[in-house]
Amino acid sequence: MLAVPSFQDIQKAHLRIKKLIHDTPVLTSSGINQLTGSVLYFKCENFQKAGAFKFRGAANALFSLDEKSASRGVATHSSGNHAAALALAAGLRGVKCFVVMPHNASKVKVEAVKSYGARVTFCEPTLQSRELTLQKMIDKNGAVFIHPYNNFEVICGQGTAAIEFLREVPDLEMMMTPVGGGGLFSGTLISARAIHPEMKLYGAEPKNADDAYRSFKSKRLMPSFKPDTIADGLLTSLSELTFKIITEKADDIFTVSEDTIIEAMKLIWERMKIVVEPSAAVPLGVVLENKAFFRGRKTGLILSGGNVDVKKLPFQAG
Amino acid sequence: MLAVPSFQDIQKAHLRIKKLIHDTPVLTSSGINQLTGSVLYFKCENFQKAGAFKFRGAANALFSLDEKSASRGVATHSSGNHAAALALAAGLRGVKCFVVMPHNASKVKVEAVKSYGARVTFCEPTLQSRELTLQKMIDKNGAVFIHPYNNFEVICGQGTAAIEFLREVPDLEMMMTPVGGGGLFSGTLISARAIHPEMKLYGAEPKNADDAYRSFKSKRLMPSFKPDTIADGLLTSLSELTFKIITEKADDIFTVSEDTIIEAMKLIWERMKIVVEPSAAVPLGVVLENKAFFRGRKTGLILSGGNVDVKKLPFQAG
Repeated sequence: MLAVPSFQDIQKAHLRIKKLIHDTPVLTSSGINQLTGSVLYFKCENFQKAGAFKFRGAANALFSLDEKSASRGVATHSSGNHAAALALAAGLRGVKCFVVMPHNASKVKVEAVKSYGARVTFCEPTLQSRELTLQKMIDKNGAVFIHPYNNFEVICGQGTAAIEFLREVPDLEMMMTPVGGGGLFSGTLISARAIHPEMKLYGAEPKNADDAYRSFKSKRLMPSFKPDTIADGLLTSLSELTFKIITEKADDIFTVSEDTIIEAMKLIWERMKIVVEPSAAVPLGVVLENKAFFRGRKTGLILSGGNVDVKKLPFQAG
Repeated sequence: MLAVPSFQDIQKAHLRIKKLIHDTPVLTSSGINQLTGSVLYFKCENFQKAGAFKFRGAANALFSLDEKSASRGVATHSSGNHAAALALAAGLRGVKCFVVMPHNASKVKVEAVKSYGARVTFCEPTLQSRELTLQKMIDKNGAVFIHPYNNFEVICGQGTAAIEFLREVPDLEMMMTPVGGGGLFSGTLISARAIHPEMKLYGAEPKNADDAYRSFKSKRLMPSFKPDTIADGLLTSLSELTFKIITEKADDIFTVSEDTIIEAMKLIWERMKIVVEPSAAVPLGVVLENKAFFRGRKTGLILSGGNVDVKKLPFQAG
C-alpha cells in the first residue's frame, strides 16, 4: 500500500508546480444561486492547462522524478484528461510520454493527447485491458508508470486546487468535488481537512458509476462493474489508496442521475457562459437534487474540466 | 440627425453605469495565438449582465431618462440581446418594458427577455414590420423608444467597453469589434480614437450581412436587403448616426465567410472554454482569414455576447 500524503506533502507539491499551473479563477452565478437557493462558488479547473485539474497531479508527478527516472520517459493509461495532462507536463520537461487509451475515448481527448506529442496505443475499454496493454508497453520501453490517481505525487498535485480555493474563499462551509478514481477528492480532503477541520467535504458521483458511493457506505472497496455514464471522466473506480483516504476523511458521497448531470451542465453553459465537460457538472447536479440540504450554505464546487467534443453535445434539440 | 457623442459623453456614461455593469475580464489564449501568429486579447462581454455588451448601452439609456419619461416605460425592437438588456435595466429601475421581436428570434433570447419581465410582441423579421409594430405599441402606451443603436445614450454606453479594455491592456495596436447596427463599433471608435489616436480600429462583418462594409467603401449608407448569417446579432443595418461615426473614424471593415465564423466560434469554445454566440466570433474569423495582416500585432477583439441556444449549435457532427 502506498503512503497517504500529508498536507505538508501537498504544500511542497504546490511550491513545485506553482509556476507551471494556472491559479484558476473562482466564479459565482447569481442566476444559479437564485435557482438553487444556495451560495455556490465554482473553482474553474476547466481553465487549467490541458483543460482539467489533472494537470496539477501530472505536473507534480513529472517534476518529482529524479533525472534518471525522467530520462526513461513516462507512461499511463487514461480515458483522456490525465493522458493529455501528462503529455503536456512531459513535453515541458522534455521527456517521452506513452499513453494507453480505450478505443472509445472521446476523439477530442485523443487528439489533444497526440497534439501534446504523446504516443498513443489503443486498448479495450476495460481496466484489465488498459493495465495489460500498459504493462506490455512498459516491459518494452522501460517508461515510468504514472497512475492517474493511485499515485502519491498525483494526489498531492490534485490537492493544490483546494488550497487555492480556500485562499480565495476562506469561509466556505462545504466543498464538493466529482469522484472518478478519487484523486481529486482525496487531495481535496487532505488539504481542506487540514486548513478547516470542521468543513463538510462531499464527493459527487454519477448513479451509473457509483463505486465510491457503495464503497464508502459499505466500508469495502467495491469497484464498478460496467459503469455507463455521460460523465466520461468518472468511469474509473477508486484505488486502494484513494478508498483509504476517502473512507477516513469524507463526510459523505452523493450520487446523481444522468438527466440531472445534463441539466447541470446546461445551466453552467447557459448561465455562466463557460464550457465544462459532463463530469465537471456532477457536483452542481447533486445540489440540484438536494436543494434543501444545500440551501443558504456557502459551498465550493470544483469544476473539474472543460474537455468536451462540441460536435457531440447531450442537449436535447428543443 | 442625432448628435454624435463625444468621448466626454462616454466617460459620463461610464460613471453612470459603473456600478450596474460588470467590468468584464480580458482573456488570452496561447493556443489561438500560436494558431494565428498574432497576439490577441479578448474582452469578454459574453460575461456581461444579460450575456452581452448590449447591457452597457441599455443601462445608460435607461438611467439617463428623467423621472417623468421613465415613468412612461420603455419600448424597443430587437432580435434579442438589446431587448434582454433593456428588460433587465428597466427592471433595475422599476419601470415597464415593451419589446417587439421577430417571430424567428432565437427561443433562448425570447425566453431571456420574458424572464426579465418585459412584455413581448412578435412581428415579421423585417425592419419595416419591426418599426410598424413598435410604432403602434408606442402610440397605444406612450412608452419611450430606446433604439438598439441609433440612440445617443446607447452608443455612449457601448463605448465604455473600450475604455475598460484599454485600461487593462494599454498598448494594444489594433482593436476590432463585430458590426451589426454599428452601436458597439461606433462607441468603440469614439473611445479608442480619443485614448489612442494612432490605434488601428476595424469592424468585422459577415459577408452575408455586409451593409457596413459596402456603406463604408462607397461612402453611402446602403442597408442590407436580405441578410442571412448565422451571426444573428449582426442582421441589422447601420443607421444614419452609426454610419456617420464609422465613416469618419474607422480604419477599415473586414468581411468573413459563414464557415470561418463557425470555425472561429468552435476555436473559442474549445481552446478558451467559454461560450460565445456566433456574432462574437466574427472578429476572430477576420483574423483567421487574414493571418498575414494580423501577424505579431497586439490586437484587442471584443467578444460581444454569449447568448446561444446550446440545443442548436452549428458544429458539424464529426
